[in-house]
Amino acid sequence: MEERPLTTSPFDDDHLHEECGVFGVMGVANDAAALTALGLHALQHRGQEASGIVSFDGEHFHAQHALGHVGKTFSRQDVIRRLLGPAAIGHNRYATTGETALRNVQPFFADFDFGGFALAHNGNLTNAYTLRKELIRQGSLFHSTSDTEVIIHLMAQSKQSSAVDRLIDALRQVEGAYSLICLMPEGIIGVRDPLGVRPLVLGRLGDAHILASETCALDIIGAEHIRDIERGELVVCNGKTVTSYHPFEQKEDRFCIFEYIYFARPDSEMHGHSVYDVRKKIGMELAKEHPARADIVVPVPDSGVPAAIGYAAQSGLPFELGIIRNHYVGRTFIEPSDHIRHLGVKLKHNANPNLLAGKRVALIDDSIVRGTTSTKIVEMVRSAGAKEVHLRISSPPTRFSCFYGVDTPQKEKLLAHKFSIEEMAKLIGVDSLGFVSIDGLYRALGKKSRDTSKPGYCDACFSGDYPTALTDISSHMPQQQFSLLESGGAE
Amino acid sequence: MEERPLTTSPFDDDHLHEECGVFGVMGVANDAAALTALGLHALQHRGQEASGIVSFDGEHFHAQHALGHVGKTFSRQDVIRRLLGPAAIGHNRYATTGETALRNVQPFFADFDFGGFALAHNGNLTNAYTLRKELIRQGSLFHSTSDTEVIIHLMAQSKQSSAVDRLIDALRQVEGAYSLICLMPEGIIGVRDPLGVRPLVLGRLGDAHILASETCALDIIGAEHIRDIERGELVVCNGKTVTSYHPFEQKEDRFCIFEYIYFARPDSEMHGHSVYDVRKKIGMELAKEHPARADIVVPVPDSGVPAAIGYAAQSGLPFELGIIRNHYVGRTFIEPSDHIRHLGVKLKHNANPNLLAGKRVALIDDSIVRGTTSTKIVEMVRSAGAKEVHLRISSPPTRFSCFYGVDTPQKEKLLAHKFSIEEMAKLIGVDSLGFVSIDGLYRALGKKSRDTSKPGYCDACFSGDYPTALTDISSHMPQQQFSLLESGGAE
Amino acid sequence: MEERPLTTSPFDDDHLHEECGVFGVMGVANDAAALTALGLHALQHRGQEASGIVSFDGEHFHAQHALGHVGKTFSRQDVIRRLLGPAAIGHNRYATTGETALRNVQPFFADFDFGGFALAHNGNLTNAYTLRKELIRQGSLFHSTSDTEVIIHLMAQSKQSSAVDRLIDALRQVEGAYSLICLMPEGIIGVRDPLGVRPLVLGRLGDAHILASETCALDIIGAEHIRDIERGELVVCNGKTVTSYHPFEQKEDRFCIFEYIYFARPDSEMHGHSVYDVRKKIGMELAKEHPARADIVVPVPDSGVPAAIGYAAQSGLPFELGIIRNHYVGRTFIEPSDHIRHLGVKLKHNANPNLLAGKRVALIDDSIVRGTTSTKIVEMVRSAGAKEVHLRISSPPTRFSCFYGVDTPQKEKLLAHKFSIEEMAKLIGVDSLGFVSIDGLYRALGKKSRDTSKPGYCDACFSGDYPTALTDISSHMPQQQFSLLESGGAE
Amino acid sequence: MEERPLTTSPFDDDHLHEECGVFGVMGVANDAAALTALGLHALQHRGQEASGIVSFDGEHFHAQHALGHVGKTFSRQDVIRRLLGPAAIGHNRYATTGETALRNVQPFFADFDFGGFALAHNGNLTNAYTLRKELIRQGSLFHSTSDTEVIIHLMAQSKQSSAVDRLIDALRQVEGAYSLICLMPEGIIGVRDPLGVRPLVLGRLGDAHILASETCALDIIGAEHIRDIERGELVVCNGKTVTSYHPFEQKEDRFCIFEYIYFARPDSEMHGHSVYDVRKKIGMELAKEHPARADIVVPVPDSGVPAAIGYAAQSGLPFELGIIRNHYVGRTFIEPSDHIRHLGVKLKHNANPNLLAGKRVALIDDSIVRGTTSTKIVEMVRSAGAKEVHLRISSPPTRFSCFYGVDTPQKEKLLAHKFSIEEMAKLIGVDSLGFVSIDGLYRALGKKSRDTSKPGYCDACFSGDYPTALTDISSHMPQQQFSLLESGGAE
Repeated sequence: MEERPLTTSPFDDDHLHEECGVFGVMGVANDAAALTALGLHALQHRGQEASGIVSFDGEHFHAQHALGHVGKTFSRQDVIRRLLGPAAIGHNRYATTGETALRNVQPFFADFDFGGFALAHNGNLTNAYTLRKELIRQGSLFHSTSDTEVIIHLMAQSKQSSAVDRLIDALRQVEGAYSLICLMPEGIIGVRDPLGVRPLVLGRLGDAHILASETCALDIIGAEHIRDIERGELVVCNGKTVTSYHPFEQKEDRFCIFEYIYFARPDSEMHGHSVYDVRKKIGMELAKEHPARADIVVPVPDSGVPAAIGYAAQSGLPFELGIIRNHYVGRTFIEPSDHIRHLGVKLKHNANPNLLAGKRVALIDDSIVRGTTSTKIVEMVRSAGAKEVHLRISSPPTRFSCFYGVDTPQKEKLLAHKFSIEEMAKLIGVDSLGFVSIDGLYRALGKKSRDTSKPGYCDACFSGDYPTALTDISSHMPQQQFSLLESGGAE
Repeated sequence: MEERPLTTSPFDDDHLHEECGVFGVMGVANDAAALTALGLHALQHRGQEASGIVSFDGEHFHAQHALGHVGKTFSRQDVIRRLLGPAAIGHNRYATTGETALRNVQPFFADFDFGGFALAHNGNLTNAYTLRKELIRQGSLFHSTSDTEVIIHLMAQSKQSSAVDRLIDALRQVEGAYSLICLMPEGIIGVRDPLGVRPLVLGRLGDAHILASETCALDIIGAEHIRDIERGELVVCNGKTVTSYHPFEQKEDRFCIFEYIYFARPDSEMHGHSVYDVRKKIGMELAKEHPARADIVVPVPDSGVPAAIGYAAQSGLPFELGIIRNHYVGRTFIEPSDHIRHLGVKLKHNANPNLLAGKRVALIDDSIVRGTTSTKIVEMVRSAGAKEVHLRISSPPTRFSCFYGVDTPQKEKLLAHKFSIEEMAKLIGVDSLGFVSIDGLYRALGKKSRDTSKPGYCDACFSGDYPTALTDISSHMPQQQFSLLESGGAE
Repeated sequence: MEERPLTTSPFDDDHLHEECGVFGVMGVANDAAALTALGLHALQHRGQEASGIVSFDGEHFHAQHALGHVGKTFSRQDVIRRLLGPAAIGHNRYATTGETALRNVQPFFADFDFGGFALAHNGNLTNAYTLRKELIRQGSLFHSTSDTEVIIHLMAQSKQSSAVDRLIDALRQVEGAYSLICLMPEGIIGVRDPLGVRPLVLGRLGDAHILASETCALDIIGAEHIRDIERGELVVCNGKTVTSYHPFEQKEDRFCIFEYIYFARPDSEMHGHSVYDVRKKIGMELAKEHPARADIVVPVPDSGVPAAIGYAAQSGLPFELGIIRNHYVGRTFIEPSDHIRHLGVKLKHNANPNLLAGKRVALIDDSIVRGTTSTKIVEMVRSAGAKEVHLRISSPPTRFSCFYGVDTPQKEKLLAHKFSIEEMAKLIGVDSLGFVSIDGLYRALGKKSRDTSKPGYCDACFSGDYPTALTDISSHMPQQQFSLLESGGAE
Repeated sequence: MEERPLTTSPFDDDHLHEECGVFGVMGVANDAAALTALGLHALQHRGQEASGIVSFDGEHFHAQHALGHVGKTFSRQDVIRRLLGPAAIGHNRYATTGETALRNVQPFFADFDFGGFALAHNGNLTNAYTLRKELIRQGSLFHSTSDTEVIIHLMAQSKQSSAVDRLIDALRQVEGAYSLICLMPEGIIGVRDPLGVRPLVLGRLGDAHILASETCALDIIGAEHIRDIERGELVVCNGKTVTSYHPFEQKEDRFCIFEYIYFARPDSEMHGHSVYDVRKKIGMELAKEHPARADIVVPVPDSGVPAAIGYAAQSGLPFELGIIRNHYVGRTFIEPSDHIRHLGVKLKHNANPNLLAGKRVALIDDSIVRGTTSTKIVEMVRSAGAKEVHLRISSPPTRFSCFYGVDTPQKEKLLAHKFSIEEMAKLIGVDSLGFVSIDGLYRALGKKSRDTSKPGYCDACFSGDYPTALTDISSHMPQQQFSLLESGGAE
């Protein structure tokens, strides 16, 4: 019995993954850390490898970082009790590099000349390596392998006197995508990059203010959604007021369109759109563009469900749960030899044989990255008796890598980069394959079509149209750039 | 910050719960334990507190019992490697009493005169306490607080020579519900009680035979479903053949109707019915019996989804995901003081505010037990902006306790036992409330209505019509019957 | 780098090992379990693999069993708080068979007709297998592989009405060595076998009574040592009085002489002798019988220290710490390839090179079992520069196995069974080797010499003179007698 | 039952404690990390809170840091296997501040412009806070609260090109005590401060070179002791040769005299003296200076044993084990209410009542810091029946704090700072009390007496004669200087 580890984490499937969720609260009596833990729990889908919380009690900062799900560490009373104070920020992390060392777990903290400062980052900087090299040359010491740390060092080098001014100074030197939440003695700070690639919202709970990646993190604590932080805006919440700054050059909106397709939770609202509603509408566009001669519409759960509801509504075909998801996933099981095909996918999914037998199935999924999981799911659906499988994808073909905080394989590994749609259909083993068009996607968002001169969203993973410079990429950043490989900690 | 532990386990909600899942395999080269671990993983919904596997390698039995989910222990290579042999049986457990001691975790094992014997039980015996008292009086020593152990002691007292004959001898003395899987050097045994209350199916994987509570456990390992074990039937699988016995008096079929409503996985097939299909049909009956002047049909996920699909199809109203489930549940979080209403329910569910605002909602759930969760979910739906809430339940009112292996509160705590439907609607806070009728339920199963003289199912929790004697209940079994309180083990 | 696990537990060395320590307390307000935990901590040297405590709160029994040292589990407040009540008993275990399953961890508990009963056993029964076979034939079900469980089943079969009478009934049927502490609703029981092979003492703390294997367990809780329980005596402590019974046939005293040599803690008093004082006197006898032309006397720490002090005092040679013990032992280290000789022994011991260089060393150890450790220590002492090594052993040659609760290898593996003293000296690599004579040993205990007709101690491991029948041995008990192999539990 | 945690760690007693042990190896094929783990195990007495190892495999550095004993993490094969390469350095830590965060666990690592560099420090810098404040003002970001990190930042700021030159540059700016071991791609570095306060030795194993705090770490891996690193010397071991530098101004020798009294292991050799031999000689001086009218000489184990052997030899009184040490210490036990006096001390020590009863005892300990443990041990000895207790201390009165890497309370808490010897005797409850004189201490080291103009050792804790400037102390370093309080990590 050979050991073939089969990971069953929600990330083993063939999806792009958001790297981070951030949360902050200022102005609650003693509960800042407990509220932050709940907010991070609601944002768990944005990063599942590690979490951290830093609080400030008026005199000292308190920190806890831990590998694993939020609930593993931050549901513990002894942990939360140590994180004193009326202000706290937190971070969920999904690691792109496989380096899961605790030193990379945010929020990062720095003891500046003027006081302590903690920072949590969702996004990715595209000139971090270049800046890092220069900072090291000048005598800065880096302690993580994260791009985020350059912001801290740029702050340390700044000649400005206040934390906010130093932060602005630092951010003017970086390029890429960022939504940041920071904690300083005077309060919490929220900032979005000038293009507004990653989300950040502002909420209120009594007199306290909340910053979070998504509105679902406001809902869990019963906070009210006030508004989205604007692109290029910096807000300071001091426990009473929210002060807004626009310190950066004005740029056009380039909010990540993939947040609507897959990353965000369907119950979140982003830039005035209900995520659930957009997904349903994409499904409707998909049905218009790629109708299927099918008996039933079946989603790949859970991410394919809203688009499948839309597809079914538009097409008039019945929506059915043809694939059942087992929610008790977790560790890796040992695979018995020879008996089982595609065990990995079966640990999480099972085709519903009584329903599928003899049916022509319109199968709805949100995206195809490498194509590995799709192939297995299609085979499972066929084994359960489906007569035909018509795969419909609620995003355009993913042909380019993301450099703005999403874990994507190199484009050479993207199925849609290498193959035509006909070839993909054959490889995956479906009777027909259809992707929503890029214009269909924009229609679901209320536009007529994509305006090439001013698209209004970042859709680089589909279009290759990157809205920022990619300095590190152009300067041939080495693949293996760090000299220390640290493991995540022995338990 | 006071500690108010908020359990977020799937069992904290207001459902009845199946107590056990069982699985066995005979005749695979070396993988019996690995296959059993996978089967138990697929049956995790039937019991989540503890699991055990016993294997036989031709010479020795090997056992491992553990608290927690199957994957926590039985995904480990070192554990599975110790469980040698071509035959194994396993058990998932949900504890009714709160006693989670390892000594109560099945399969139970006994070293008889004639050899080793292991046994896993799904169900509950209604004369176990009476038999136990008598056995102790005669010198038997009990090591668990489980009703199942009396079967083992009755076997030890039997004068029959073979294990199978001793087991039959023992089972003739018990009353109640049982589906058993046993392991002996000669092979594995499957038995169902004369009424066939709990499920048990037979499958095949190559030359090997499988016994399992549900067909979804066959699917995960790619095994073929041969047939259900009949009521009152005992089968012996020796690695080559399956021998069938009918050693008990013939009785009418009384399969648990609640398996269709909630317990079983929707992708399982039971007694020729697809569970998913029955649930959808119940939803359709519900729509006929209790239509709602609503804008949308919203399920309480995940258990309410199939009935909601049926309700939507029948009523013509759109099916919508108005409540989103957070799957990253686990440990208990600390509740921040004062800020939050119904945090417990929010750790797992969030109402989708953009969808619900201003809508009249037909909310579909599968049952109401105490009514506690329903009240909270309805309030959450209203807070999200729903204008009206019409609650529709895909089972008749649960008015009586189950004594056949389902965890039910005493009937005095059942909302439907104490209140009329109008009173319940008021307590829960809905604009209207409708339960499917008992006849509607039978119609969903292809009957015209319930045949009182010969219903064909056990529906005692709705009707109070118990198909067996309830000896322990009549003989006033003391509430606190055991002298040893053992905790589950310090980690 | 190949994995060669090197256990560094105190049991990896070449010693005989006591299998168990027992402790009980009756009559303290709420602290019985906490006192028992402390008592077991003081008795940790008698059994280090697992521990258990059972308490009684006037209504219910409470139990906790755990693998590992006492302090790992029973220092935890949450564990101790669950073990309610004014009475408790506990047990430390050292496993002889390698089976470390939790089901073998004592105290054992039984739910008799007349009430609950817990039992902790130090010793070993020499007809347990024979009795077990017969009990199984009659329908008893065994749940452990321990010899102790037969006592429980014999009690269950007894026709006597009280727990004490049933226990006496049971003990009249067993042969071998036992010191038992039992817990019943009426109080705690202490019993020693008719020969008094294993120790058991009675103490008092305020109004409460204590039973323990050794007086050092009284000292830690500040209890007063009243007296030793006599051979063949049974005492019942009910919280007020101690009632003594002598229900067995009178036999001569056969207290285990090895308790003085190695098992007991030096600060304990046994049968009126200070263990430390006896060890020192053995060292003096050894110096008389086997003087050495040496410069210094060096003990193998820690067990050889008292005898070395006696040897030095008698011989006039200086006592020196020539071997230093590292007390931070614990888990197994990975052995680096090739660099290191005898790493295992070095994890715990280091020769003191500055002291030993050029010296003739009289090296004092308490016993030689297989000779493996002695060989390594002697080589280490020589590598540190010792010119001559004269090994002196404070016990006679160990030539026979113990069947009374001590872990001994089969006699074929005992060095002294296979070789003469001259051959042993050569094998171990010493310049001279001397064991104290059996008469010298008795002289250290205040006798003139061993009285063959009535020795007064059990010295079977030296003399082969077993004071009881050895029924299981004579009846050719099979080596592998149990059908279930259970591992200790996955953490 | 109130919770009163009673720590039983070796540090709960009333001793001064060394803060660190360091180890490094260069030039073994694949075993550098495994050898380092063993070296750290042998140096465990120098720091028990946390350990770390950094290795270099020719291309990458690998690091692992962990709280707890060395054996807990670094005995694990999976951990050691990740720490690849022929070179490694390691560090044991004892935290002075109570901050046990992982970020303070050494070796520290830095990614310099010229490559990676790891550093492990034994000692303490007396101008670290002053330097840190200046470095932060200039833009350096500190990640630990350790004084050691300033060395890394000074290196980063240096304009020198090689790692060695930058290190020298940095060390020329610090004051205080340090023995450093560093790892760079070219090899390992060892340095001692110009006064040579803390120890560091050089060894050889085949072709490989070893650096370690003490010779006992060479012994465990079978390495040969070549020589001590000289004060103010820096050596580079590149796998073939050892190159020596003397880059600092020549100063007189000020090796820490307390290493001989308590810190070092007795089997180590330091500056040509056997530690064990020096301790015995101190005991002899003590017997000359403070003879006792006693019946027996009893050490407080284990640290008092060598001096007690010397005292006994000089005085002619018998050496006896009057106090027995329980080696199974570990976690904190719950203290039962009211029953027990001085439970804390009893978890580790028990007076031997049979030996002590009626005796006049000369009790030998190595030092008195706060006096708390002495008081409890003396009371325990009296309770065991001792008639008189004459306490003899093998060091002069400890009247001043150490600022060179030893954990000392503020001098206001030192018993000898506040009270005369007569007062101390009364407080501790002894019949007489004697400390070895400072001249006696120097005599034990082969000198006639202390030469005030050039003592040759640092004895500031006794004399107040500090051999370096104490810049941070003079500049009134604030007590609570750090803004982030991080806990050690939730398990």
